[in-house]
Formats: sequence, structure tokens, C-alpha cells
Amino acid sequence: MKIYQESLTKMKQVVKNYTQQTSDFTIEQQVREIIENVRKRQDQALKEYELKFDQTAIENFAVPATEIQQALQKISPELRQALEHAKKNIVSFHEKELTSGFIDTAVPGIIRGQKVTPLQRVGIYVPGGTAAYPSTILMSALPAKIAGVDQVIMVTPPQKKGIAPAVLAAAAIAGVDAVYQVGGAQAIAALAYGTESIPAVNKIVGPGNIYVATAKKQVFGQVAIDMVAGPSEIGILADDTADAAELAADLLSQAEHDRRARPMLITDSLTLAQKVSQQVDQQLVNLPRRAIAQAAVEDRGFIAVMESVPEMFTLMNEVAPEHLEIQLADPSQYLSYIRNAGSVFLGRYASEPLGDYLAGPNHVLPTGGTAKFSSPLGVYDFVKKTSFIQFSKTALQADLSDITELARTEGLEAHARAVEQRFAAERKGK
Amino acid sequence: MKIYQESLTKMKQVVKNYTQQTSDFTIEQQVREIIENVRKRQDQALKEYELKFDQTAIENFAVPATEIQQALQKISPELRQALEHAKKNIVSFHEKELTSGFIDTAVPGIIRGQKVTPLQRVGIYVPGGTAAYPSTILMSALPAKIAGVDQVIMVTPPQKKGIAPAVLAAAAIAGVDAVYQVGGAQAIAALAYGTESIPAVNKIVGPGNIYVATAKKQVFGQVAIDMVAGPSEIGILADDTADAAELAADLLSQAEHDRRARPMLITDSLTLAQKVSQQVDQQLVNLPRRAIAQAAVEDRGFIAVMESVPEMFTLMNEVAPEHLEIQLADPSQYLSYIRNAGSVFLGRYASEPLGDYLAGPNHVLPTGGTAKFSSPLGVYDFVKKTSFIQFSKTALQADLSDITELARTEGLEAHARAVEQRFAAERKGK
Repeated sequence: MKIYQESLTKMKQVVKNYTQQTSDFTIEQQVREIIENVRKRQDQALKEYELKFDQTAIENFAVPATEIQQALQKISPELRQALEHAKKNIVSFHEKELTSGFIDTAVPGIIRGQKVTPLQRVGIYVPGGTAAYPSTILMSALPAKIAGVDQVIMVTPPQKKGIAPAVLAAAAIAGVDAVYQVGGAQAIAALAYGTESIPAVNKIVGPGNIYVATAKKQVFGQVAIDMVAGPSEIGILADDTADAAELAADLLSQAEHDRRARPMLITDSLTLAQKVSQQVDQQLVNLPRRAIAQAAVEDRGFIAVMESVPEMFTLMNEVAPEHLEIQLADPSQYLSYIRNAGSVFLGRYASEPLGDYLAGPNHVLPTGGTAKFSSPLGVYDFVKKTSFIQFSKTALQADLSDITELARTEGLEAHARAVEQRFAAERKGK
Repeated sequence: MKIYQESLTKMKQVVKNYTQQTSDFTIEQQVREIIENVRKRQDQALKEYELKFDQTAIENFAVPATEIQQALQKISPELRQALEHAKKNIVSFHEKELTSGFIDTAVPGIIRGQKVTPLQRVGIYVPGGTAAYPSTILMSALPAKIAGVDQVIMVTPPQKKGIAPAVLAAAAIAGVDAVYQVGGAQAIAALAYGTESIPAVNKIVGPGNIYVATAKKQVFGQVAIDMVAGPSEIGILADDTADAAELAADLLSQAEHDRRARPMLITDSLTLAQKVSQQVDQQLVNLPRRAIAQAAVEDRGFIAVMESVPEMFTLMNEVAPEHLEIQLADPSQYLSYIRNAGSVFLGRYASEPLGDYLAGPNHVLPTGGTAKFSSPLGVYDFVKKTSFIQFSKTALQADLSDITELARTEGLEAHARAVEQRFAAERKGK
């Protein structure tokens, strides 16, 4: 891995160059066309696109409920146990994210409050082939279910041998209400606008390729979407108390996801930096996804050697990584230093894949620096708030002059008159 | 106003036609060009656009801090008092939206939690001219301040006579940290990417014209944005206990905003429907913004007469209005019937403009049906969450086999090895 020994200012620039995104205009055009076509021609358009892009003739998009339930018998008992264990931990963590509204009756005659309501229907996109991760189905569907969403539906591209039993089993365990075999931008269009077979949803979540991501961005506003996900990232902050082989293994765990994944180590120890770099090379040798991991390490990875722990945090907060490991002595004391990160792994035994699969916090996380303003996927993504007020006549009268002052300042006469109308009878002497 | 007496099914279709949005491809292209230009040429590009679009040569984008403070002296004492009163109520309401993280230590050896962190810098867009509403500045900036955002900056188009004192005074009262005179898509580009004069922000909020809205949509992902705002809406549910003149005044208060505003009344009384329609015509006559309000009423407004109160709510939940007035006898009993609405006004004295200006709940609200999945602007828009975990060696060991089972099922060998690496010494007999 490339090792930098530069000033904080210089490193901030290096990191910035890493995070710059580009958009692809040709893809945007293609996706726009697909969405318009699905909006107009619905199922017919979906069928044509599935034939074209997935070489599959689809009669019925809906996967029969019996097939979904049968998948639970097709997977190994070990996998089923692992999925159920993951579910248990995801549920117990996410239940703590539930919020209720509030009511404020502090002022006589005035009731003010906020009501929390689950979304009605939510769609989950699950990529096809080797990128179809059962764990992500649990991470996406369970928070929606905990939020109280009426109907959680899933779309996933058709597969030559049928949708993988592990995918359908995860859907069953997560309580997904319906599964449709359709993928790509056309699936996103169907979820946003609805077709004869597939109902329109209020929010679309889940990762996908560039076509899926572009489509999600384009339907944003018609429906809600989660953040447009980029390649996986791991940022490790370590001092020389850390084990180089363990750090290398954790860096590679994210590197194997994608050639564009970003494994990053920031340390105050040049010795550690060099050891980790050697370990990465060594562990790469017999990794099944070696080509992918090596490309990520070489093209996108880096090790930065900084002068102090505060500098290390300043740089890492600039990166705002999806996953952040704190492999420093006494790690939990640094929680307050963390400004921008999706999920934090404190100490030696919080290896990143533990969070991917089993610990319970969500693994759908902000990438590409978006942890500066985004949160992990959570129960809060599947509810929305509505405020409400009730005023007595006396309470409204007390506020009358300030309301009309503001309304007339803004040139909105009808606003002022609407409130005055409540006292029209009195003014006329009635 | 047009009065419908149709079945629920038919009315759902009518309402659907009302909400369909279209996007303008030409504007998208223009905006894309502006954003790219500002990204590359920064202040220079901003100056050229301000000359072109606002006919203003700008030397310094930043409005001097003294000018902002002096504005407080230039506005009338009545206006200042009204703004301070509004601030007080906005603050007391929004403080209830503050949330803290949590920590879960239920399982020995396992710490799981969530940390809440304010965004670092936020940008507020304030439209120019007659659409520059001081009240919106309070509604946008105060929740960010309460959330703990370090720096809240504001952009607004330059004005021939200088920026209105009411606008600058509102910025001062809300505690806005800096004001820049730049507008349109170029201002959004500057906030998203930063220029020599204007720092990049993490989130952009605030209403604007179609160029601003399109630009916000295009920079989404680079920064966070609030919902893309559409024309104002008011939906009123009323029975014949309601006062027709008051309902008409409330409908007109939203109609005067925009020719594309949507005043809507759903009732079970044809008599009331007819009276309200007459009142609307009558009150329109001497309204200063009559042309705008009349266009909204005629082109976009409707009255629907339904058979029952539950039918009225079903239809209104389909509309998902920005503002919802419940003008029914005993209004608060219906809170549970409301599924989709931005802000709810219960009873006769909760006239909608009370909420626009003074009650305290936010007036930046989801429009165009987006209340089905979006919330009012709030403190929660200016914070983000980070999860964290810490595991003991024993706790990780207990989960080891389930983690590796899931990792290998997903074909992610390096994930499995990263966790196993923690126990490598034992396995080698060390």
C-alpha cells in the first residue's frame, strides 16, 4: 500500500482527491429513458427490459409465497441459525431507535405536538448474482418492520437458476411481504411509479450498480430514497499497540468488495505502517477475490503516517469513512473525537466484519464522505413526522397582532385576513 | 371553486392527476452547466452569473457583519417584536426535537450504541424580491442552531436597493453566522462545492425557484438537501359546524402564494361546499394578490363532497397535504385518522397562517404528496448518527462461527479471515 508521510494540510488535499465523484451523463440519459418508458408502458416495458438486460422472459414478476417459505428448508441449518442470530441482534439494537412523538401543553389554551407515523409501503432493492447479500436483506427490511411499515416489498434481478435460496430465506426471516423478480433502473422505476404487477412504494432503499444508483437519484422526490451508496470504505486509526496482521486482514475485508473500495490506515507509527503494508501483500496472495482486493488496495488504498493522535482524528473526520476502526490503546476514550463516520469499531475484537453480519447496528452506511451529513440506515428512515397545533380563541387573540405584522411585512394580505376573520363578528359588533 | 360529488375511487384518480410532477429537461441541462462552471471557476463564475441573471456586479459576496446588525435598527419595533416572539415559540417547540444517542450494555462483554453529532456547516437559501420571507429564515436557521451546527450561512440574490432590512434582521435574530449575496443555481453550486469566498456546506435547505430546486436535486449526494419544495397546499376537512367565511379565508391564504398553489376542501356537506365557494369568490375581489390567488383557486383548487368522515380522511391521506386543517366538531379526536400531512391545524382557531408565523412548529413542510414519506424541517435534519460497538474476546469468539458462516455464504472469504485472525495465535499454538 502507498505510505504517505505528509503534513495534515497536504494529506487533506490527498484525501479530497480521493473523494471526488463524477457523474456519467450517458448513463443519466439512458436511465431517464427507462424510467419514462416504465412510467408509461408499465409491465410491458419491464418485460422488454428484462429480456434485453437480463436475457430473461418473465411471465409473473411476483415470486410465489410458497417458494419463499420453501427456501427456509433449502438452506443449511448452520446458515439458518446464523441468519436467525443476526436477526435477533439487529432487532434488539434497532428497537432502541424507535421514537414517539411529543405533546406540549405548557401554555394555557395552546396544544402543540408532533406525531410519528410509519411509511405505508417500502421497496428494497437487492442486487443479483454474487452481489446478492442475504445479510443486507435483514439490515434493510428489519428496521422497516420495526418502524411499523405496512408492507415491505423486495425487487431483485431474475437469475437463470432462480433466485438464490439464501436470498429468499433471508426475505422470509426478515418478514418481507412480497418479492418481485425485476432489476436495474427498470425495477426502481416500477417501485417509484407502480405498474400493473408491482405497487408503488413511498421509499426505496438498498444498494445497486450505477444504473440503479442513477435511477434512485432521478426518482428522488417522487419517492424517498436512502443515500446513493458508493464503494465500501474502511478507515483504521491505529498506534503501535495494534497487531499488523489483524489490521491488514480488516483492510482486505473491505478491499475484496469492489475494485473501487477504499482501505485506509492512519497511524502515528511508521513501523506499523510498514508492517501492515507487508501483511497486506502477504495476505493478498491466497485470497479468492485477490484481483479485486489488490486493485482496491493499489488504486484506492493508502496509509498515512501523522504526527499525533489529534491529527489522525482530524484527517479521518475529513475522510468521513463508512467504517471506522479505532485500534488505539484504550479505544473508547476517543468516542468524543469522532465527528464523521458511519459505524465505529472500538478495539481489537471489534473487527469490521463483526458489524457487517452479527453485532446488530446497521451495515447500510453512508459512503464517499456522506457520513458528514448522513446516518446509518435505521428505524428513523421508515417513519415521518407530522406536527399539530390547537389554539383557544384567547390564545389566538393574544398572537393576532404579531401574526398580522409578519404577514403584511411579507406582503401576504390574505394570511393576515384569514386570522382576522376569526374575530370578524366582534369587529362588526355582532 | 370547482365542486366534485364523486365516488372515493373517482376522487382518488382526480387527486392523483393533481399531484403528477414533470421535470424540465432544458432547465436540467442549463443547471448542470452552471454547476460545472462554478465547480471549476468558482468566484469568477459566480460573478459572471450574477451579472447575467441578476444584472449586478458583485465585488464582495459576503454582507458585512455590521450591516446585518444595523438592520435590527432599521426595522420597525413592531416587526422586531413579532420576529422575537416567533423565535421564542420556534425555539421552545424545536428544543423538544433534540435527541440523544443510546448505549446498550445488556450482554456481558458487548457494548453497542449510537452517537448523535450535529452537522458542521449548513447553508440556507433565501429567495430574492417579494419571495424573501423573514419568517422562513427563522424556521430554517433556528433548528440548525438548536441542533448545534457550528456555522449556519445564508445565501440570497443581490437586490438593487441592497438586501431588505427585514431579511437581514431575521438573519441576525436567528443567529445566522454569515450572509452571501448570490442566488439561483450558482448559489447552490457554491454551497455544495465551495468557492474562494463561500465555504462548502454539508447540507442545503430552503425554498427557491425551479432553477434552485433543480440545482439542489443535482448536488444531492455531494451534500444533503431538504425536500425539493413545490407550491403551497392547504387541505381542509370540514363539516357543517365550520364557518364558510373562515374556511374561504384560509383557502385564499395559501392560494395567494403562487398560481400553482393548491387550495383544497373536503367536506360531507354540499351546503358548506357551496357557501365556501361563494365566499372565496367574494373575498377574492379586494385581495391585493388577487390574480395569483384566483389562478390557484380556478386551476388547481377543488372542493370534494364525500359521503362520510372516514371517506374524507381516506381521500385527504391520498392527497398528503402540506397543511391540513381539521374543521370538524371535536377536532382532536381525529388525530389518529391522519396518516399523511406536513402540519395539522385542529379546530376553528388554528387558522393556517398562525402556523406560518407564530405557533412554533416548522413551516418548511413536505409538499406535492411527499408528506407520505417526509417530515417538517426539524432539529433532526441537522444531526446525523454514528453507531459504535466494542466486543470482548469472549464475546467475539461466541459469534465467530455464525460470522464466518454468513461471510462464506456471501463469497467474502477475507471477511471470515479478518475475524479468524483474532484467534490466529491460538490456532497456531502460540
